[in-house]
Amino acid sequence: MKKAVVLLSGGLDSATALAIARDQGYQCYALSIDYGQRHRSELVAARKVAQSLEAVAHQIIKLDLTAFGGSALTDQTIEVPTSGAEVDIPVTYVPARNTIMLSLALAWAETRQCQDIFVGVNTVDYSGYPDCRPEYIQAFEKMANLATKAGIEGKKLTIHTPLMHLSKKEIIKAGLALGVDFSLTVSCYQADEMGHACGVCDSCRIRKAGFAAANVIDPTSYQSESVLDR
Amino acid sequence: MKKAVVLLSGGLDSATALAIARDQGYQCYALSIDYGQRHRSELVAARKVAQSLEAVAHQIIKLDLTAFGGSALTDQTIEVPTSGAEVDIPVTYVPARNTIMLSLALAWAETRQCQDIFVGVNTVDYSGYPDCRPEYIQAFEKMANLATKAGIEGKKLTIHTPLMHLSKKEIIKAGLALGVDFSLTVSCYQADEMGHACGVCDSCRIRKAGFAAANVIDPTSYQSESVLDR
Repeated sequence: MKKAVVLLSGGLDSATALAIARDQGYQCYALSIDYGQRHRSELVAARKVAQSLEAVAHQIIKLDLTAFGGSALTDQTIEVPTSGAEVDIPVTYVPARNTIMLSLALAWAETRQCQDIFVGVNTVDYSGYPDCRPEYIQAFEKMANLATKAGIEGKKLTIHTPLMHLSKKEIIKAGLALGVDFSLTVSCYQADEMGHACGVCDSCRIRKAGFAAANVIDPTSYQSESVLDR
Repeated sequence: MKKAVVLLSGGLDSATALAIARDQGYQCYALSIDYGQRHRSELVAARKVAQSLEAVAHQIIKLDLTAFGGSALTDQTIEVPTSGAEVDIPVTYVPARNTIMLSLALAWAETRQCQDIFVGVNTVDYSGYPDCRPEYIQAFEKMANLATKAGIEGKKLTIHTPLMHLSKKEIIKAGLALGVDFSLTVSCYQADEMGHACGVCDSCRIRKAGFAAANVIDPTSYQSESVLDR
C-alpha cells in the first residue's frame, strides 16, 4: 500500500489534506510540530483528527522556536491582530515555519520510505505568507529530491498541496464530502485550553466566513461572549 | 556590522567555517542542534568553540529526531561502522539532517535579519552524503529565497559553504591560520562524555589522516588503548 507523510496542524485545512490523502489510497503518517505555539489546543485537535481519519501513525515532534522569537504565535510580547486590516506579511507568520515542518516531514518520509508528503498550504487566504505559494513548494520539492538517498536514487519525492488554489468554502465542502469532522479541528490563533475559539482573530474570521459561504452550520466551539468582550 | 548565522556542530569542519565567517567580518550567531545524537560531547565542544571564536550568540535548539529512527547516530540499535569499507551512503547519515539544520538557521537568520548562513559541508570526505553537495546547497538557497519575507523583498539570502571543495588537510590548515583551537572540537561519532575520541570510527579516521597530511600534531584526546581494544 502506498504511504504518505501528512503535516497535520490540527486546523481545518490540514485535516482536509489528510482526508484527501486517505481518499487517494495512502496509508497516512500524520506529523504535528509542537513548536511552542500559543494555541496548544491545536495539538490536542491534531491527535483527535489523526484518529478520526485513521492515520496509521501520529507523531508530535517537539521543537522550541521561542528562542528565535519574531512571531506573534510564539512570542508572547507581540499581540495577535484581530483587526483584519493587515498589510503585506502578517505578524502571525512564524519564521521559516513551513520550511522547517516540510524538512521534518522529509526526514520521516525518508525513514519510512514514503515518496509522498501532503501539506494543506493554501495561497488564497494566506497570500501574505511567502511559504504558502506554489513556486515555494516547487523549489522545496526540487531541493528535497537532491537532499535524500531516495531522491538521488531516482525515487522521486512529491509534495502534494491539494488545497493550494481552493477557497475556504471549497476546502470545507471537500472536507465534508470526505467525512471530516470539523468540530474536532482548531484554527484559532488564541484558542483556550479546551480548544474554544476566540472568534475574532484573522484565522477565526476566515474560518467563520468559510462556513457561511459553504452554507453549512459552523461547528466551531467559540468562547463565551463575555470572554470576547474582555 | 554584517551578521551571519553559522551552523556549529562542535566538530572540526564547522569550527573552521565559523572562523572563516568571523575572518570575513561577520558578527556570528552560532547555532547547534541537539538532535539526540549519540555523541553528546559535540554540544559541549560547540559551546567552547563558539566562545573561543567570539560568536555574539550561541543557541542550542533541541529537536528529538530519535522518534524517526533510521540512522546509526540517533538509533541505538544500528552499529557505528569502523571498517572504512562502506559503500554508497553511510549508515551514519541522519535523515534530512542538513535540510533540517539549514531550515532552523534560516528561521534564526530571518528573525535576526541576517542575509548570510555559513555551513561547513564538504563534498570531498563526505561524497556519500547527498546533502553535502553543491547542487543541493544551491537548491536550498533558491528555496530559502522563496520562503522568507526577506527573500521575496529582494534581500537575497546566501548560503556560504567555504569548505565545500577543501580536503581535510586544507581545512585544518585554514583553521589553524585563523586561530582555531582544534583541541576544543569533537568529531568522533562515539566520543565519551569527556569528548575523548574513539580513534577508530570513520570520522576519527578521516580526522586523524587530515592532521597527518597537514603535518601538524593531532591535538585530539583519544580514549585509552585499553578502551580501543575492547
